[in-house]
Amino acid sequence: MRAVDLIAKKRNGGELDRGEIEFLIDGYVKGDIPDYQMSAFLMAVYFKGMTFAETGALTRSMMNSGDTFDLSSIPGIKVDKHSTGGVGDKVSLILAPLAAAAGLPVPMVSGRGLGHTGGTLDKLDSIPGFQTRMDEACFRKLILKNGVAIIGQTDNFVPADKKLYALRDVTATVESIPLISGSIVSKKAASGADAFVFDVKCGSGAFMDTKEKATALAGSLIGVMKELGKKSLALITDMNQPLGKAIGNTLEIIETIETLKGRGPADLTELCIELGIRMLLLGERAASIEEARSILEERLYSGAALAKFREILVEQGGNPAICEDYSLMDLSPNKTELTAPKRGYIQSFDTREIGNACMVLGAGRAKVDDVIDYGVGLICHKRIGDAVGVGESLFTVYYRNEKSLSEATARLSKSINISDKPAPPIKLVLDEIK
Amino acid sequence: MRAVDLIAKKRNGGELDRGEIEFLIDGYVKGDIPDYQMSAFLMAVYFKGMTFAETGALTRSMMNSGDTFDLSSIPGIKVDKHSTGGVGDKVSLILAPLAAAAGLPVPMVSGRGLGHTGGTLDKLDSIPGFQTRMDEACFRKLILKNGVAIIGQTDNFVPADKKLYALRDVTATVESIPLISGSIVSKKAASGADAFVFDVKCGSGAFMDTKEKATALAGSLIGVMKELGKKSLALITDMNQPLGKAIGNTLEIIETIETLKGRGPADLTELCIELGIRMLLLGERAASIEEARSILEERLYSGAALAKFREILVEQGGNPAICEDYSLMDLSPNKTELTAPKRGYIQSFDTREIGNACMVLGAGRAKVDDVIDYGVGLICHKRIGDAVGVGESLFTVYYRNEKSLSEATARLSKSINISDKPAPPIKLVLDEIK
Repeated sequence: MRAVDLIAKKRNGGELDRGEIEFLIDGYVKGDIPDYQMSAFLMAVYFKGMTFAETGALTRSMMNSGDTFDLSSIPGIKVDKHSTGGVGDKVSLILAPLAAAAGLPVPMVSGRGLGHTGGTLDKLDSIPGFQTRMDEACFRKLILKNGVAIIGQTDNFVPADKKLYALRDVTATVESIPLISGSIVSKKAASGADAFVFDVKCGSGAFMDTKEKATALAGSLIGVMKELGKKSLALITDMNQPLGKAIGNTLEIIETIETLKGRGPADLTELCIELGIRMLLLGERAASIEEARSILEERLYSGAALAKFREILVEQGGNPAICEDYSLMDLSPNKTELTAPKRGYIQSFDTREIGNACMVLGAGRAKVDDVIDYGVGLICHKRIGDAVGVGESLFTVYYRNEKSLSEATARLSKSINISDKPAPPIKLVLDEIK
Repeated sequence: MRAVDLIAKKRNGGELDRGEIEFLIDGYVKGDIPDYQMSAFLMAVYFKGMTFAETGALTRSMMNSGDTFDLSSIPGIKVDKHSTGGVGDKVSLILAPLAAAAGLPVPMVSGRGLGHTGGTLDKLDSIPGFQTRMDEACFRKLILKNGVAIIGQTDNFVPADKKLYALRDVTATVESIPLISGSIVSKKAASGADAFVFDVKCGSGAFMDTKEKATALAGSLIGVMKELGKKSLALITDMNQPLGKAIGNTLEIIETIETLKGRGPADLTELCIELGIRMLLLGERAASIEEARSILEERLYSGAALAKFREILVEQGGNPAICEDYSLMDLSPNKTELTAPKRGYIQSFDTREIGNACMVLGAGRAKVDDVIDYGVGLICHKRIGDAVGVGESLFTVYYRNEKSLSEATARLSKSINISDKPAPPIKLVLDEIK
């Protein structure tokens, strides 16, 4: 078998078999197949796509390139959730304890943020003492004991994805649905859960800008999971405005706790319930949407979900006192209001620019090795459709220095579109794909 | 400027400007842009193509990556010919002295063979003493004195093409019309001629298998030459059977001399005249096709073209006595006939397989560093449409050892299709593209 022939086969629109894809991925990880052949192959995939069988084979080869977690000794159907990334998305932090409080085993392996999106691990790192580095045995033990754990990937977790992603990033081959699916599913499947709920976001703050593209990605993720023998489903959700109000690490932990206290923003609470319903159904902890909803609402408003969150903190080394005293976390004392220059209605946000503004403040990373400032970020007070008066606050900005504030403010001012005509509020959950 | 953005621009179907293409090619040749970015770019070009302006910019950047010959001190319009490669194609060896004998300055920079096709330089190397390595000054001096020279590329001739071709060869990006055009035209334009006649071959022995693809390539070659301010035209010619009868280096030199003596195969003689007519017209040595034909026929049948060939031999160190005594060249004493297994008419040849059979005999190269045996090859006695009787010779094979003979014979037997029904002879010159 020769790599050049497999590149030509894909270039000509052919379907590669499992052995051919394994040859490419194994050879690439071992260094037998050079970057320049893999990048040509990836570009051919960009143009010619992959069938579910091909993407399944790709995903399996990627998954098997490193550590995989075996959680089969834990009783019950283990269910994880994955979001394709957005601005203000702290859902995992609420959903993991909420679903666990409803009796579902939740093994959650999360990632870090890059660019305009935040990452669950970065948010957890803003909690003093919290540990996300853990080996498989500890992870398994915690889930057995507590029903839930949220950790980061091990160093040898899907090394094929690290190598492929670095190559895709510099060869304009990131935006390919089978390649995105392979990257996401290989990491999820390696984490050992049995079933998965995907939150596929679309809109101005998402990687997929339209509902059509998000739906195509959702279909691919589910199809590839099926190839791997795993159950999954997806909600297509709106990312044309930040999710909740808080963006930035400490600010999002505070909003997480507020939501677990039953006082969170309506959209954030609702999305956690909607995703939680699908987790309980996949995990066979409820027989219907209605039953699942009533279980989750009870667990949330009774304080059981907050208690589970507190258990997570205790088990993973975090200080549980933060739940009562937010000042135990780092939050910049410098804050300012960005006010509306005119009256009207919020028509739209450039949500990616809001995410970029937070990154500029120091809350996110432009490059993978940038250091994060947990104490900066912003509160977005308005939603699309809201009326706003002149001088009313649009954003409260937590900043560390004037220079970053000035660039962030310039970006924020351009990110919001106010006009005279009323605008309808937008729907959060757009579709469900099974 | 970043390479990844230019790859994305081409991937999205955008048109790169001259500065952007220069950035890519210059950066690649210098090593600033790595192979893996270039191969992704080449695959994007495979799918999205290039405009003539883009291909022109590519070609100019490639050409300027190394030595270029300046022949402006030689009076008159210098005209060269280029063939896209075929089996039995010894046209350059006849055409160069023929056109020069008609008063046209002919600076010819030729290449070596690879795979099923032969190369002009390899054929010349079978002439004892003949020198094709020459610097620009010697090349210029020879053309001034003798009106013609046939040489190989200098070591630093279009290094961008060497590097790009090696990459394309292992990344399945060879078959792209703008990339093929860039490779051909950069080398031709660097050789310093003012105008070019392209012989674009199509059929079973050519790189372009259909007339449509050959026509598209011809259009691109001419369009790119125009971008570089050079005049050119193309003939689309048939390569569904070997050109002439001889294939193999010494055998082709013998057929060359026979043709220059006016005793060559009809198809080969006719193609030399047809291409020569276009060279004289481009070089303004004749006002019409009829005038050009009558000049060329006179030069051929009077012996003037043979005399010019002899001058080339003398000036470039070859032994002119070969014109009278073919035994001065190496020809294997081992020969055998491959005869027809049944009677009928020749329907078709797999001309590429005939070329491969010659390569197996030792007449060509599978890899660039293979050593050639000048004394082996074959004579193909039949043309498409010819009647053949049982036991009549199809091929006379000159071989060095039984092992290579056996593999070559197996290939040759499969390369010829004989059936009962009469078949019409096929046309040699299919179209002219200006």
